[in-house]
Order: sequence, then C-alpha cells, then structure tokens
Amino acid sequence: MAKQERAIRTRNALIESAAALFDRDGFEVASLATISARAGVSSGALHFHFQSKAALADAVVGAAGERLVRITRDREALPLQILIDASHELVQGLRADSVLRAGFDLSANAERRPRAAQDLRRLWRDWVESTVARAEREGHLAPDVTARDVAAAVVAVAAGHEVLGHQDPCWLERAPLTRFWSFLLPRVVGAARVGLFVASGDPAAEPTASR
Amino acid sequence: MAKQERAIRTRNALIESAAALFDRDGFEVASLATISARAGVSSGALHFHFQSKAALADAVVGAAGERLVRITRDREALPLQILIDASHELVQGLRADSVLRAGFDLSANAERRPRAAQDLRRLWRDWVESTVARAEREGHLAPDVTARDVAAAVVAVAAGHEVLGHQDPCWLERAPLTRFWSFLLPRVVGAARVGLFVASGDPAAEPTASR
Repeated sequence: MAKQERAIRTRNALIESAAALFDRDGFEVASLATISARAGVSSGALHFHFQSKAALADAVVGAAGERLVRITRDREALPLQILIDASHELVQGLRADSVLRAGFDLSANAERRPRAAQDLRRLWRDWVESTVARAEREGHLAPDVTARDVAAAVVAVAAGHEVLGHQDPCWLERAPLTRFWSFLLPRVVGAARVGLFVASGDPAAEPTASR
Repeated sequence: MAKQERAIRTRNALIESAAALFDRDGFEVASLATISARAGVSSGALHFHFQSKAALADAVVGAAGERLVRITRDREALPLQILIDASHELVQGLRADSVLRAGFDLSANAERRPRAAQDLRRLWRDWVESTVARAEREGHLAPDVTARDVAAAVVAVAAGHEVLGHQDPCWLERAPLTRFWSFLLPRVVGAARVGLFVASGDPAAEPTASR
C-alpha cells in the first residue's frame, strides 16, 4: 500500500514536472532527462511510468481534464452564475496551474495531441453550450439573444483570454474577466436582471478547500 | 532590374513556402531543405536570402505585419464599421493566408519570436483600442459602456476565433463573426443605432482588388 502510494506520488510528480517544462520550453524542446531530474526521479522510474514523451503529454492532458471536470461541476446557483464562476476558475487555473495550461496547450495542437487524449477546448465548449441552453430553458436570457450566440461569445472570449495570457499574464487576472462579464451581462440577461449576477464570480463557489 | 525582380520573387516564394510549412508542421519541425524544395529554389539560394530559419520566421512575421497594416488601413466609414470590416478581413486572412496565420502564430510565441520582429497581436490590439476610442470621441458608443471594455472584448474574441480556428476552421468563416457582431452591437452602440452598422462587414470595403 505504501509502495502503491509512492508510485502514485512519483507519477504525479512526473506529470507536474512534464507540464511545467512543456509549458516553459515547449513539447519538442523539453527532454525526458530534464523532466525526470526536475521531478527528483531517476530516468528508469520515468520509463517505468511512461513509455514516451507522448505518453507523458497524454497524462498531462488527462490531469488537466480532471481539473476541468472539477471546474465545470454542478453547483447551487443560477446556470449563468455557474458559468461566470467556472469561467473565473478556468482562467485563474490557466494562470496558476501549469498542468491546466500545458494540458490545454497540448490538447489544442492536433498534431501533438495523442489520439487517446481529450480535446479540452471541446469539453469546455460543450459544457458552456449546455449551461447556456439550461439558462435559456429556465427563462434567464434576454428575449432577443439566443443561447447559441451567448455560448459562442463566451467560448471565444475564454479562448482569447487563454491565448493572450501566454504573452501577457494580465489577461488571466480576475479583473479583465470581471469587466467582460459586467460589459456582457446586460446584453445576455437584460438590464433588469443584471443585479441577480456577480460578474466577479461568487467567492463562496471557489473550490480552494477541495484542492 | 530583371535580376532584382527575380530576387524579390525568389525571396517572396521562400517566405510563402516557409509560412506554409511552419503552419503545417510547426517551426521546429519544418526544415530548410523542405522550405527551399517547396519554393522551387536551391538551398544555396535560400541561404543567400536568409541566414537561418529564425531569419525566415522574422521575414514571415514581417510579411504578415504588412498584411495587417493593409487590413487596419483607414477607410471612409464610421470607426466602428471600420473595426467590423477589419475584423472580418483579419479572420478571413487567418483562414485563407498561411503567411498571416504563421506570422500571428510565430509572433505570439515569445521564445520563437526574433527580437526584431513585431508583436502582431499587440499591433492589432493597439489599433482596436485607438479605433474604439475614436468611436467614443465621436459619440457612437452607448452611454453605459467604455471604450476600454469594448476594445478588450473585441481583442479577446478575435484572438479566440484565431486560436479556435486552428482546431476547427468554422470559427474563421464569416458567419460566426457576423453573429458575434450582431449579438454585441446593441450593447456597444445602443439598440437605436444598430441599423447604422453592417455586422457582416461592408462588402465594398473588401480589398480583393488591391491584392
């Protein structure tokens, strides 16, 4: 049991190390030797867990997928507030967590993405679409907007913050996304219902404790 | 003179070939041998024009920068219509023109971007900000929005369409961006003034003839 725990810890350390180095140096440049050294693990142990750099990339995408599942969990709130909260968590995660960042990055490059790995942007997009559709069914959208247009704008803006954040981390701070939501909400829900929503995200919804 | 023309043609063929291969295979993977072969040029001729792959990347970013300058040219229209038209041209260009696509991509990767090369997203962002500020000065923005918020949303959405288009070229078609503008315009200019603008872009503004 202790042995198994140690194996899990080693595996996780390798995933974290690979994510940090893919993120810093790029997938092609990062070497297995540097990844194992950074994880404090022998290259034999690395090869015991992962047969190739592609297998490591696959594991990074998988770990990022688990984080994304947690970010898009259901909560006790209006669907649009859940969407606002999740968008903040995603962007905060992309700023602070190299597994999420490298996972999204690897998953976005079809030529690098292992066949088995998830397409994280696709997962995020599907979830945004179903959440906005729920808001529409529950009568929370303004009468002259469609769920499709709201979802497309949110997906594009989140991808934009993600990619602009690579160059300028300011895009991944809370303030720009809060301003975006404050700007967009009157159009999405109508001016009368803006007060129902917290553009900066609901602090009570932050999953810091569960990490 | 004929010799000089031939030299310019060879140089342009190498830039087009490099852009197509950086775009298809990535900067690290694309080889100088493939680039010169695809351009129908000897490797000696390539080295005459470009000392390294980095110099070629620099030239691709430079050529993309020239296209961006053309896209963001001044026109006879309201500033927000100029912005709509330019956003369509940019997204169409990212779809159809591998020089523009590879240039944006290279320019976004700080570790790959040659020091001398322009930051194309920064150029685009500065232009969007100044154009929206002009619209605000001329009284075209709704009273409860700020130029800063409009510009940030447009920059993020354009970057989002660019990056999502890598995986799914539908994002670079005219329809999604038209839907975005139709969705956003009532918020940006107020419902009463929406009719002043063409969300799909002004066809008369297309610079097809000048290419």
